[in-house]
Amino acid sequence: LRKKKIRAIQYGIGPIGAAIVRLLREKNAVEVIGAIDNDPAKAGRDLGEVIGAPDAPWGVPVVADAAALLSKSADIVIHSTSSSLPSVMDQLMECLAAESCIVSTCEELSYPFRKYPELAKKLDEEAKTWGVALVGTGVNPGFVMDKLAITLSSVSQRVEHAKCIRVVDASKRRMPLQKKIGAGMSVDEFRAQVEAGVIKHHGLPESIAMVADALGFALDEITETINPVVAKELVKTEFLEVAPGQAAGVHQIGRGLIAGVEKIYMELQMYVGARDPHDTIELTGTPSLKLTIPEGTHGDLATAAVVVNTIPSILAAPAGLRTSRDLPMSFFPPSARP
Amino acid sequence: LRKKKIRAIQYGIGPIGAAIVRLLREKNAVEVIGAIDNDPAKAGRDLGEVIGAPDAPWGVPVVADAAALLSKSADIVIHSTSSSLPSVMDQLMECLAAESCIVSTCEELSYPFRKYPELAKKLDEEAKTWGVALVGTGVNPGFVMDKLAITLSSVSQRVEHAKCIRVVDASKRRMPLQKKIGAGMSVDEFRAQVEAGVIKHHGLPESIAMVADALGFALDEITETINPVVAKELVKTEFLEVAPGQAAGVHQIGRGLIAGVEKIYMELQMYVGARDPHDTIELTGTPSLKLTIPEGTHGDLATAAVVVNTIPSILAAPAGLRTSRDLPMSFFPPSARP
Repeated sequence: LRKKKIRAIQYGIGPIGAAIVRLLREKNAVEVIGAIDNDPAKAGRDLGEVIGAPDAPWGVPVVADAAALLSKSADIVIHSTSSSLPSVMDQLMECLAAESCIVSTCEELSYPFRKYPELAKKLDEEAKTWGVALVGTGVNPGFVMDKLAITLSSVSQRVEHAKCIRVVDASKRRMPLQKKIGAGMSVDEFRAQVEAGVIKHHGLPESIAMVADALGFALDEITETINPVVAKELVKTEFLEVAPGQAAGVHQIGRGLIAGVEKIYMELQMYVGARDPHDTIELTGTPSLKLTIPEGTHGDLATAAVVVNTIPSILAAPAGLRTSRDLPMSFFPPSARP
Repeated sequence: LRKKKIRAIQYGIGPIGAAIVRLLREKNAVEVIGAIDNDPAKAGRDLGEVIGAPDAPWGVPVVADAAALLSKSADIVIHSTSSSLPSVMDQLMECLAAESCIVSTCEELSYPFRKYPELAKKLDEEAKTWGVALVGTGVNPGFVMDKLAITLSSVSQRVEHAKCIRVVDASKRRMPLQKKIGAGMSVDEFRAQVEAGVIKHHGLPESIAMVADALGFALDEITETINPVVAKELVKTEFLEVAPGQAAGVHQIGRGLIAGVEKIYMELQMYVGARDPHDTIELTGTPSLKLTIPEGTHGDLATAAVVVNTIPSILAAPAGLRTSRDLPMSFFPPSARP
């Protein structure tokens, strides 16, 4: 228990950042002291007004100048600006040097040791220098396809193979997400956008690497494919229409292999009009175990939740780069004392 | 990573203790240096022979004299002798004073702060004195109805109510368990055995207290009821028969209340002939979340698994009394280095 409130800064106020801020305000133990966003439509305004809070203004500034706000040395920075680790390295390093812990939604930070071992080392060393800890987390990567599978493996004597499947109906998700997954594109356009790196769910290789390390699988190779889910009938959402033959969303498959033998299989289907959305984990072994979340873990609500719920764990963690694999994951009660 | 193997002692060689020893022997990082059991049929013999290992003898002693073996100061004692915390206090204190960490299957140790706050304090202080950590864990309490529910709550913004249901088909479980749950007794006999404290699954109040603390529910009261599941038709198992009208097993319900309002509901049905065995967790809130393990977590295999899998976590944990709530739960790969 602390005597003072946890002083928090929100870094990035996109849709997820705004949802995080709303949730942070429900926590008695947390005081949001400011937010960082370089969008001219947001910087210079009141944070409550920017996110459309009914009780705005809050007297909490949104600034474009990260350095000035970070110099106040918040206990925690909630970082939500990009999926790409290289592109956020400077932001993260600046937060650490300000002696703030970080919870980030950056997918590539969730388990960076395989793809970016040098960046991971740099962050770990910087965090230790300043005596703070950081973690990248979210629903996926961070929970459904990795932490939950690893937690389930704790009741297994032997694990031969791990399979995680997540089917998300994007129909009720926000518009940018429906666009991002290519809903309404022709199949050719979809493939071109995949080629250009625009259409992609980030995090499968990170989840595969995390699960592999937890299960003791020394993988030779991680593969990933991205294909369209092609609509068989007309799908209408609040924001767009998908005609039969058009792309309704993404179908992404990741595999972890040892000597050509599949040890881990992860499949993400995220498309408008998905029937029977669910999250399922299957561990083949002794005993074999299956776990299902029948409606699936709600992406937007749960992302903000897991990020905010991770705050107490990362504040209590040893200094350095942590992952959701290391941290006990739990709920952050609104009534919790600082 | 350690340089030397993890030196382990098994305390108690009942059916679960024997299963734990078998699994320990699969872990490259672990060396079992001995076992403690005061059963004259076991003490003085070779551990491999006692548990009927095909590769016996192992040259590993089973002793009745705990003090002599504990004086070798193992890194970890796996403790599996009783469900009752008061009855194992001396055993646990002796292990701690020997500077050994402990993973115990004692159900009442899993979250002892509500029922035995003074014993919890005593253990915590003793563990800190000697720089070691201990934890009580298992499938239930320790996983299905508490750790898994708490892990699921990490993707929730608000939790109003938690429900955990576990239905176990005892038909394929070992004979002592079938007897312990009253299968084949008359309903009157069953109720008398409940009254005498003989028939009871231990751990529901502990799971309720753990989940309540994690969710921030300041419970006024925890209630528990134990009733028979009455067989509607003849059930035959390898070991016994249950006639219609006889008890087939236990139906136990625990509730956590605030001002008379139920916040937590836990239900355990463990009986021979159970149809549709499963573990289900439902969190009512934002978003509401449901999770199911369709066949249920296998009791015997999973208990040994979770105990052995907890070894790396408890060795790495800060000194003191820990619970599965605090520890990241994971798999202990057989290939893991010491």
